[in-house]
Amino acid sequence: MKRSPPRSPNERSRSPHGPLEILHGHRAVRAVLARRPGAVTRVGCAVGLRGELGAFQGEVQELSDAELSRIAGTDLHEGFVVEVAPPRYLPLAELGELLLRNRGVAVALDRVRNPYNVGAILQSAAFFGVDALLLGAPAPHPGLAPDAVRVAEGGAEHVALARTTDLADSLARLRERGVQIVGTHVTDAAPALGFAFVHPTVLVLGNEREGMSDRVRAACSACVKIEGRGAVESLNVAVAAGVLIAAAQSPRRTQGR
Amino acid sequence: MKRSPPRSPNERSRSPHGPLEILHGHRAVRAVLARRPGAVTRVGCAVGLRGELGAFQGEVQELSDAELSRIAGTDLHEGFVVEVAPPRYLPLAELGELLLRNRGVAVALDRVRNPYNVGAILQSAAFFGVDALLLGAPAPHPGLAPDAVRVAEGGAEHVALARTTDLADSLARLRERGVQIVGTHVTDAAPALGFAFVHPTVLVLGNEREGMSDRVRAACSACVKIEGRGAVESLNVAVAAGVLIAAAQSPRRTQGR
Repeated sequence: MKRSPPRSPNERSRSPHGPLEILHGHRAVRAVLARRPGAVTRVGCAVGLRGELGAFQGEVQELSDAELSRIAGTDLHEGFVVEVAPPRYLPLAELGELLLRNRGVAVALDRVRNPYNVGAILQSAAFFGVDALLLGAPAPHPGLAPDAVRVAEGGAEHVALARTTDLADSLARLRERGVQIVGTHVTDAAPALGFAFVHPTVLVLGNEREGMSDRVRAACSACVKIEGRGAVESLNVAVAAGVLIAAAQSPRRTQGR
Repeated sequence: MKRSPPRSPNERSRSPHGPLEILHGHRAVRAVLARRPGAVTRVGCAVGLRGELGAFQGEVQELSDAELSRIAGTDLHEGFVVEVAPPRYLPLAELGELLLRNRGVAVALDRVRNPYNVGAILQSAAFFGVDALLLGAPAPHPGLAPDAVRVAEGGAEHVALARTTDLADSLARLRERGVQIVGTHVTDAAPALGFAFVHPTVLVLGNEREGMSDRVRAACSACVKIEGRGAVESLNVAVAAGVLIAAAQSPRRTQGR
């Protein structure tokens, strides 16, 4: 292990697969150390918190709160930072194979921007055993923000990741291979609770304000909605994702397994 | 209408029921103007956004972004601020009567602290037609934060509010009157999906890190858990609340209606 503490994003090293990332957060860092110890280059924690890192054998530097904030780029580091190789994003063909092999469930995000929402969705995906998260965003694709990784509380290490700058095209290709693509829409949609999800399936959630784009909607094989009583227009996208994932993963509602 | 714009929290007026509140956010302010126009003392919006306030007849002052941020106490004002009388918090006896009369559902929060979580829960409560939100917090009770009201996107105006500094005692009193009190716990609990919710019912969510306190748990008539697959320990509390509310409000699962 190198002796120096993790550097701030401006001072980052490079790994063979791109620049190293700085991640932070208690459960997020613990999950990285447990799942990808070989990808970790440096670890820092607040004074006295080394014991929280459990079985990790590598060197851990104790750092001041100010130093942790500087490295993490946020005060919300929860006492832990790690420098690590970026996650592997599955190519689309591999994502399709994974879903077909597992008769699985993936969640696709159409320009969901708020890292708190992305992180909570990733946490729910890991909690309910979703196979993959497909991040759709315009180029240049930002990937998964460190704040989202923290909010996911370790979920980022338990769900396969993929990304695309043309989600409509990616979904259409998965659909051609026999994957059910289920969009969410407020009108012209079947009730989500009771819907016959046919695995493998991709659940598509749209941008916080605009929902799914027309092109993404056209790529879906079906659309569902969560039925409300009209007092407010919509659910928070992370809450909607949780309700949909629970419905899609419920054994009673799963056809074709 | 007074001519001057809403003042910052430090300059607040008082209403007969306590100090006036400054709320902000696009849908939150629109909901206040639609549901409680008589309680509004002043309204401000960003230049050019007056038309977004629809049918509201009162005076609206156009303000600079900096002025809106100063008044709201945050940059996240979304172009709208309002000075308004505080919400009415139902006394516990009235909350019990409301639930018994409607054979209704309430959500109770045991020290849920993050205003984003509280706001998303309030939004879900309004979306699914939950009757009331009971906020449990240690004294001095902070009430409902303006950030939570913004995040709820108008939900705060569609759900009856109550608050308590002794949630265990409040729940025990509701239980004595025949209200089912359903806590959430990670062990020793029945699966939430498929649970026989008997309305009127109160769904209890615990603090983000600690869950429900032992005293609150002892006041519950049953506990449920959302079953995961173990990759991460828990769901975000707002996501868990959404899944539970959807389950409790699903007509097929409602006994006794």
